Amino acid sequence: MNPERLKQLLEDVKNGEVSIDEAVSRLKSLPYEDLGFAKVDYHRQLRRGFPEVIFCEGKTPSEVSAIIEKLQKSENNLLATRASVEIYEQVKKKFPQAQWYPRSRVIVMRNGNQKRIGNILVMSAGTSDLPVAEEAILTAETMGNKVTTLFDVGVAGLHRLLANLQLLQEAKVIVVVAGMEGALPSVVAGLADKPVIAVPTSVGYGTSFGGISALLTMLNSCAAGISVVNIDNGFGAGYVASLINKIGEQV
Amino acid sequence: MNPERLKQLLEDVKNGEVSIDEAVSRLKSLPYEDLGFAKVDYHRQLRRGFPEVIFCEGKTPSEVSAIIEKLQKSENNLLATRASVEIYEQVKKKFPQAQWYPRSRVIVMRNGNQKRIGNILVMSAGTSDLPVAEEAILTAETMGNKVTTLFDVGVAGLHRLLANLQLLQEAKVIVVVAGMEGALPSVVAGLADKPVIAVPTSVGYGTSFGGISALLTMLNSCAAGISVVNIDNGFGAGYVASLINKIGEQV
Amino acid sequence: MNPERLKQLLEDVKNGEVSIDEAVSRLKSLPYEDLGFAKVDYHRQLRRGFPEVIFCEGKTPSEVSAIIEKLQKSENNLLATRASVEIYEQVKKKFPQAQWYPRSRVIVMRNGNQKRIGNILVMSAGTSDLPVAEEAILTAETMGNKVTTLFDVGVAGLHRLLANLQLLQEAKVIVVVAGMEGALPSVVAGLADKPVIAVPTSVGYGTSFGGISALLTMLNSCAAGISVVNIDNGFGAGYVASLINKIGEQV
Amino acid sequence: MNPERLKQLLEDVKNGEVSIDEAVSRLKSLPYEDLGFAKVDYHRQLRRGFPEVIFCEGKTPSEVSAIIEKLQKSENNLLATRASVEIYEQVKKKFPQAQWYPRSRVIVMRNGNQKRIGNILVMSAGTSDLPVAEEAILTAETMGNKVTTLFDVGVAGLHRLLANLQLLQEAKVIVVVAGMEGALPSVVAGLADKPVIAVPTSVGYGTSFGGISALLTMLNSCAAGISVVNIDNGFGAGYVASLINKIGEQV
Amino acid sequence: MNPERLKQLLEDVKNGEVSIDEAVSRLKSLPYEDLGFAKVDYHRQLRRGFPEVIFCEGKTPSEVSAIIEKLQKSENNLLATRASVEIYEQVKKKFPQAQWYPRSRVIVMRNGNQKRIGNILVMSAGTSDLPVAEEAILTAETMGNKVTTLFDVGVAGLHRLLANLQLLQEAKVIVVVAGMEGALPSVVAGLADKPVIAVPTSVGYGTSFGGISALLTMLNSCAAGISVVNIDNGFGAGYVASLINKIGEQV
Amino acid sequence: MNPERLKQLLEDVKNGEVSIDEAVSRLKSLPYEDLGFAKVDYHRQLRRGFPEVIFCEGKTPSEVSAIIEKLQKSENNLLATRASVEIYEQVKKKFPQAQWYPRSRVIVMRNGNQKRIGNILVMSAGTSDLPVAEEAILTAETMGNKVTTLFDVGVAGLHRLLANLQLLQEAKVIVVVAGMEGALPSVVAGLADKPVIAVPTSVGYGTSFGGISALLTMLNSCAAGISVVNIDNGFGAGYVASLINKIGEQV
Amino acid sequence: MNPERLKQLLEDVKNGEVSIDEAVSRLKSLPYEDLGFAKVDYHRQLRRGFPEVIFCEGKTPSEVSAIIEKLQKSENNLLATRASVEIYEQVKKKFPQAQWYPRSRVIVMRNGNQKRIGNILVMSAGTSDLPVAEEAILTAETMGNKVTTLFDVGVAGLHRLLANLQLLQEAKVIVVVAGMEGALPSVVAGLADKPVIAVPTSVGYGTSFGGISALLTMLNSCAAGISVVNIDNGFGAGYVASLINKIGEQV
Amino acid sequence: MNPERLKQLLEDVKNGEVSIDEAVSRLKSLPYEDLGFAKVDYHRQLRRGFPEVIFCEGKTPSEVSAIIEKLQKSENNLLATRASVEIYEQVKKKFPQAQWYPRSRVIVMRNGNQKRIGNILVMSAGTSDLPVAEEAILTAETMGNKVTTLFDVGVAGLHRLLANLQLLQEAKVIVVVAGMEGALPSVVAGLADKPVIAVPTSVGYGTSFGGISALLTMLNSCAAGISVVNIDNGFGAGYVASLINKIGEQV
Repeated sequence: MNPERLKQLLEDVKNGEVSIDEAVSRLKSLPYEDLGFAKVDYHRQLRRGFPEVIFCEGKTPSEVSAIIEKLQKSENNLLATRASVEIYEQVKKKFPQAQWYPRSRVIVMRNGNQKRIGNILVMSAGTSDLPVAEEAILTAETMGNKVTTLFDVGVAGLHRLLANLQLLQEAKVIVVVAGMEGALPSVVAGLADKPVIAVPTSVGYGTSFGGISALLTMLNSCAAGISVVNIDNGFGAGYVASLINKIGEQV
Repeated sequence: MNPERLKQLLEDVKNGEVSIDEAVSRLKSLPYEDLGFAKVDYHRQLRRGFPEVIFCEGKTPSEVSAIIEKLQKSENNLLATRASVEIYEQVKKKFPQAQWYPRSRVIVMRNGNQKRIGNILVMSAGTSDLPVAEEAILTAETMGNKVTTLFDVGVAGLHRLLANLQLLQEAKVIVVVAGMEGALPSVVAGLADKPVIAVPTSVGYGTSFGGISALLTMLNSCAAGISVVNIDNGFGAGYVASLINKIGEQV
Repeated sequence: MNPERLKQLLEDVKNGEVSIDEAVSRLKSLPYEDLGFAKVDYHRQLRRGFPEVIFCEGKTPSEVSAIIEKLQKSENNLLATRASVEIYEQVKKKFPQAQWYPRSRVIVMRNGNQKRIGNILVMSAGTSDLPVAEEAILTAETMGNKVTTLFDVGVAGLHRLLANLQLLQEAKVIVVVAGMEGALPSVVAGLADKPVIAVPTSVGYGTSFGGISALLTMLNSCAAGISVVNIDNGFGAGYVASLINKIGEQV
Repeated sequence: MNPERLKQLLEDVKNGEVSIDEAVSRLKSLPYEDLGFAKVDYHRQLRRGFPEVIFCEGKTPSEVSAIIEKLQKSENNLLATRASVEIYEQVKKKFPQAQWYPRSRVIVMRNGNQKRIGNILVMSAGTSDLPVAEEAILTAETMGNKVTTLFDVGVAGLHRLLANLQLLQEAKVIVVVAGMEGALPSVVAGLADKPVIAVPTSVGYGTSFGGISALLTMLNSCAAGISVVNIDNGFGAGYVASLINKIGEQV
Repeated sequence: MNPERLKQLLEDVKNGEVSIDEAVSRLKSLPYEDLGFAKVDYHRQLRRGFPEVIFCEGKTPSEVSAIIEKLQKSENNLLATRASVEIYEQVKKKFPQAQWYPRSRVIVMRNGNQKRIGNILVMSAGTSDLPVAEEAILTAETMGNKVTTLFDVGVAGLHRLLANLQLLQEAKVIVVVAGMEGALPSVVAGLADKPVIAVPTSVGYGTSFGGISALLTMLNSCAAGISVVNIDNGFGAGYVASLINKIGEQV
Repeated sequence: MNPERLKQLLEDVKNGEVSIDEAVSRLKSLPYEDLGFAKVDYHRQLRRGFPEVIFCEGKTPSEVSAIIEKLQKSENNLLATRASVEIYEQVKKKFPQAQWYPRSRVIVMRNGNQKRIGNILVMSAGTSDLPVAEEAILTAETMGNKVTTLFDVGVAGLHRLLANLQLLQEAKVIVVVAGMEGALPSVVAGLADKPVIAVPTSVGYGTSFGGISALLTMLNSCAAGISVVNIDNGFGAGYVASLINKIGEQV
Repeated sequence: MNPERLKQLLEDVKNGEVSIDEAVSRLKSLPYEDLGFAKVDYHRQLRRGFPEVIFCEGKTPSEVSAIIEKLQKSENNLLATRASVEIYEQVKKKFPQAQWYPRSRVIVMRNGNQKRIGNILVMSAGTSDLPVAEEAILTAETMGNKVTTLFDVGVAGLHRLLANLQLLQEAKVIVVVAGMEGALPSVVAGLADKPVIAVPTSVGYGTSFGGISALLTMLNSCAAGISVVNIDNGFGAGYVASLINKIGEQV
Repeated sequence: MNPERLKQLLEDVKNGEVSIDEAVSRLKSLPYEDLGFAKVDYHRQLRRGFPEVIFCEGKTPSEVSAIIEKLQKSENNLLATRASVEIYEQVKKKFPQAQWYPRSRVIVMRNGNQKRIGNILVMSAGTSDLPVAEEAILTAETMGNKVTTLFDVGVAGLHRLLANLQLLQEAKVIVVVAGMEGALPSVVAGLADKPVIAVPTSVGYGTSFGGISALLTMLNSCAAGISVVNIDNGFGAGYVASLINKIGEQV
């Protein structure tokens, strides 16, 4: 309820077109339908081109399917992360247009054409980091961002990275996905003056501690310009990158 | 050395205007003086309005002073973080224009007027988080960003935050500084669809473990749009926020 | 053995109605049958309406069934937590009135009508926290407490919580169940001046570390009025809440 | 703004006594001035007899003194925790009635007589735990609770505890403070059917890890009825105990 | 090679019955065949009544069977810990006298009668700790020790323990097995002036961290007289207890 | 109160020599004065030759002095651990016979001659472990045990250890003190079939983590016969060793 | 591209034998094809006798097979680590010469005869450490090193190690593989003045924490001459040992 | 006792020049005086050019001075690490030739000229890592190794490293010292096919956890050829590097 609609309601009260009780009732729910809701809505409703997102872990196939059914009354894109093949098979019965990406276990539903804007570069250090990178890519794309990629450019073979500096220069924001020692974001941030979103992955063994080693590396980077998301959180990285990438764009 | 200049060099060789030995010498240093250096320089050179930064921890007052002297031949702004009062007293002998902020232990030297652009909101949960917040603010300001602030709006007293939603809506990027349980970034990211840079601080006792509790809270946030920097890393947050804030601005 | 019964015994000795050997024998077991036992019994005996509780993890279906058989000679309610479906199937053969709640893996047996008193509010941050919340609810209900609930009110969407402040005001004690970053108890304790029992859950991934992140958040809360139980310990929270809720009630 | 006041405002609008613009303006600030604020205020306002609390760690003597001066315009009691002797000396210049307890580093200011109600038992395992126990005691007393104490009853000498079972039976809620292995709350909760607030302390060495050992013991207790606060958080325990103790009392 | 055999060898050299080269060769291997071996043998050789021990984890059924076959040429008792049912089934084909204890997964082979001496008390806090307790019991018994037991006497129900103080007084050494918060050894060591071997178990959930909580409790005990073995190491506890129990006995 | 004394009391009641009220009063305190107390006393009473022990950390010099004064009414030996020089100087004013050992910060008071029995070997890996070893030695000696020592025999120089195997063979129980990697107990337990009490020390840097590395080594030893006490807990080791060493001795 | 070749290229340009465009093109790729690439190639290209290595974890059988097919165009040896039996079965269809070692899950392909040089000693503490030791052995052998072995010489039975000192003396570099308490490298480095590569394994239980205990032991060794690789990283140890072993050899 | 001396002894026995008892006595001590000692001595004796090393932490100035006095009877070089200025001042009274390096707190005493051989490259990522690097350099130099250095080449500014690839190619072994995220060894090992000894330093703050972050990075490096020493262990790295560097050299 923006100020205009509020003014209108008050005039309706003044004019007797709306009873005081009715007005009280509508105003009491105002912070959630209106001011509050508008704010959250601004954040949640996911304007055209933004996906609605379901985190599937710990939900049954039918629960996910039911949620999708409810959400799809809107015509937004939809993203479901950490979706097992069982979930996908349940979903596609009702939504044959749903696409499932087995590597990242992401389900995407696209409604109509979507203009993709800006330029997010998603990089990964090793091939085992691809599931997380793919989650970031699909998140960013479904949110309407142009995404370029650069894979398998770990710091143990710098020449592969140096051969692609052009890609770093062209991006507005860079997502760097790396497991094991997780050193790639430091090198990237040292080469490109862009915001770098670092994503540690749980790839590794022994003292990688399921991604803690990579996470600490990224948090302690001596290169400025890096911020970090949770281990294996490709979705979070894609989401943040999208928020940054859309700055200054015509949405 | 861009392709044009390389082509020119080769033509000069062909034409005999540059000797082969001279060309060899220039080409050998090419990756560092030119292609490579240009790239790093693009990252490092610190264009007008960007500060040069010195991390003072573990340096003696005279070491810091010497570094500043060398750097100040350029006319850039300068930022020295984690500077003790001893360092400051040494520095101001030569650079009386240096300003020292005791709370954040930051030294700033400003050369000439600087246009501040965009809008970074720096928030803190408690008053004890102010030193870290101030480091973020001074970093961002010295890098040429407009900064607004909102302090002492921890989640235990939501009304203080809710009364200032306007500030969140107006920012391009938000830095949220919080110690103890570090829950503020989650609430902020739930209210404002902006990139949120979360900075855990070492404020707390017992199981706060010097900021680990706050760090984990921020990494595990159920609100999308948050990325995190190291504990007490106000500088890092200010730097990332500046990179984001300048997107789409006329620098 | 209260003082009166002790006095009586001594008089019986004096009068020769009880032999000295018999008196010695009864006095030797006194700390366990009487003073001591009475104390523990006061704690353990499980007055009408209180459940007897079996922690099933690590017990075989027939072990659990045997324990229930022994306990059910009393007419108390009974609560069995962390019971697998195999355990339930064994139990219901002998006790067809047993009810099993698959989400929380709790078995409840209710004997006769039970008055439910007071008002415990059990809240959860996300839908994945429901198994733990349900364990708390069933524990509290079986112990004879009135329970109200409020689910899926995580801090990333404050409006959902703010719309239900009335429920917080009406409760005598509040159980807040939350995984991931576990920030909900801080916000709740900031809004309602009631004892808040915080229950971290193992919901999350990466740096949630199986509930440690949520646990630390709750222990470090800047809001006063919170105390915490073990990760996923819905039973413990329900039990503590019951102890508190019954204060001042006519049991 | 309760429904009645809202209704009145709308009638004033209808009657023309309040202009629509004025009504819009007042309604826009409603969630913070009124509904929302009232709720938080209900939580914060600190009714008669409740202390206002200042956490002094990280504040200078003059900052603390200034805060006290501001707060003392109300006539409430006041509690300042973790106050150094320097802080106390600054404070007592202006507030000679301030009392400082060196062991717990607590400053208390009492305004007028205060009725103490209910019965909180504060126990400690060892003499080194007394500073934390004292913080709990002073917090509870300043909040208007009757407090009884039982010190140095660690589990290595059970007879000392068993000799005082009466005190456990008489309390409404029990605060148990223990460092090192922190086993006392388990034994207490096994003996008394009361809510037990367990406070781990940082007393110990080696693998006590600054209180983590005691904390884990308390969280993993096999005795039901225990909830836990942060390491050394005597204030938090006293606060929770007060909330519980006042249930069913005439405040 | 004991002094007598060494003397004999030298006399043989003196008498020319052994050549100098032969003597050099035999003396060079002396530290392992003789002095050294004797020492280790004293430790390893496993005098009558002591078991030979096989740690089965990570060995295949046929590997274990082969090792047993080799060891059984001696007539000692034999103990195989952490043996799966598959291992047992392979073993009993050749050694029908082998006994397997499913709860502790221990295989025992007894050769002839064995006098059991001394008195080791093995206690456990909860029923879930029985597998580890049984490993300790079988280890101690197979090593020729008399073992008494006391189960399910956790600190949450002190009366059960206090009713059995006699057993504590009669033991020469006490093994206390406990999971969850692991507080039982502290109470036992406070009641009985005997060496207490504390065994943390991995029983528990959440912050029990697979036995770490119990381990820390035991290491930090404020009661003197406790030493600790690895989590779930019933064998180690039984072995140490046996070494202590045999002191002063006629072996 | 043993059965005989209880019988006597009852006969006195029967005979009218003790009134019923007097008997009730004496029986009510029975669990603490008598059965219970006797047991604890058996543990605590500190028979001739056993020290009374004060843990000085966190006590002021005058507190320690006061405690000693109270304890010294008995004629037992006395041991005060972790005593600073300030504490010692306060103590020796009243007790000039007190001896202070600066390396281990132990105060010992010996009253009369004390027969030392058995044979405890205290070993240390490096010279930096001597403070902890000395605490163990003084504890054991003050408790009336004969102590032999073997220092600086870390595993990096095995020959030093192997040259002293005789000492290992002659001991009844061995205390092994080691910091850094803490490997010495494993080697010792492999060479000598005696109970080995392992004491990790906080000696080391970096990943020694204040003794955790040594502690873990000792808990995970592949050699049987080792049990472990807290980091730097020389007192605890000496105490356990004394309990073991006295088995089978004429005390 | 060394200076000579660069000079030649420039002369070719000068002489018109190479067009400027062609020279630009070749110079642009120079850092990767030539200077840079040569260096990485020197590291990567895997000269005769060096294996090409595939880390199979997280790759499907067909992915691994495809990578091998591509790599095998060269005639180098090939090493694939952490290969499941499924991977092996897929690989041997196309490469029947492939050998699979089930214990270490390593696939080796040898092309032609390979001279093995130097002398690497690979030791293991227990039989459960053999899988990791075998990975180190196969890595070193496939890289062209002579390998000797010494297994099951844990520190609990020193005589087994002391009987084989000769092997230690003869090696150029020693790889020591150990789980549980991981003390063997300390003893070995104390006996042999050679570089010791220590490999912690995840063998153990309880506080071995999946190899952390062994890792810490190795990092904190009081014996100089030890460096450490990741837990279970037999490949890494074999690789480093090979680099060292080849120093001073005619490759 | 080498074979010749053993033979001689036996001949003396044969000839009656040594009695059998005397021979027995001498042979019994043989493993420590002779075979065993020789082996350890081989390791310890510290041949010409090798330093004798004193770890000063936890030693008083006079203790260190006394040890030096004893050691200096030999004419070896001497290295004392972690020596405070107080220690140095005590030492130089007697040994004016002692040199102290304040940054690394190392004392070196050089006796006569020493030929330096091979080529160890010691690199550091940042200037704050220099104390540890210097400890490595002084260790290696005092052990007779030629050392080259390359400082301040952290991965955030790759061009500085790439400009010095020549140094990497010329070294036989490389020591890489790095704090914070510790990524430099990965990059170096990817560029140079030499053994890389990685030294994590405690430089950093927040989640660097005193060097753990850097340590984990190094252990998890995706580049082969790296082994790691303890945090801040410059001495250990210099020692290992020396062992490697001397392979194939004429010592």
